[in-house]
Amino acid sequence: MACAFCDIIAGRRPATLVYEDERVAAFHDIHPAAPVHILVIPREHISGPDALAAGDATLAGHLIVVAGRIAQDLGIAADGYRLVLNEGRQGGQSVFHVHLHLLGGRRMSWPLG
Amino acid sequence: MACAFCDIIAGRRPATLVYEDERVAAFHDIHPAAPVHILVIPREHISGPDALAAGDATLAGHLIVVAGRIAQDLGIAADGYRLVLNEGRQGGQSVFHVHLHLLGGRRMSWPLG
Repeated sequence: MACAFCDIIAGRRPATLVYEDERVAAFHDIHPAAPVHILVIPREHISGPDALAAGDATLAGHLIVVAGRIAQDLGIAADGYRLVLNEGRQGGQSVFHVHLHLLGGRRMSWPLG
Repeated sequence: MACAFCDIIAGRRPATLVYEDERVAAFHDIHPAAPVHILVIPREHISGPDALAAGDATLAGHLIVVAGRIAQDLGIAADGYRLVLNEGRQGGQSVFHVHLHLLGGRRMSWPLG
């Protein structure tokens, strides 16, 4: 089945990577919800956070570590940022390849809508 | 310095734990933003996601794994849920002991406010 994020990993769909290593890659969300909105994804196709949590704690942790590094690199770490994983329909997941949202550059509101 | 979440871990502040192991504990948020709103925290005092990302990828991954298990236990995994980490002022962090929000039981909106 076609997966937009697998296409990015494979180079079949253009994206400007802000970070990559042997396990993950990161790029700007094409529908940004904040001045900085990066998606960190595993190279491996994993359908969502629930499958990630069931399978690979090390990879889950690496997504967070990488997001923290990118926040430093992009200069938003000192002011703060938000990390979000959406699982399934009620979580608001739209692409079924797990992706960690890194959002910053503005004040994120709370409580969440 | 006083920390409300260290107080919960130490038993000095009441909380009904929905999960605990040697590294983390989880309980209901006292200001729920959704029908299910659980906080998963490390027993160790770590100030926020940025410090977590800089220090302990294994623990970061474990927070996600535990949140996934709790979502299964509470029956919200099939419909979906959202996981959130808030770093600093612009991220909306209010307690400076890292906590992973597990939110579900309703449709979470996107984009984030």
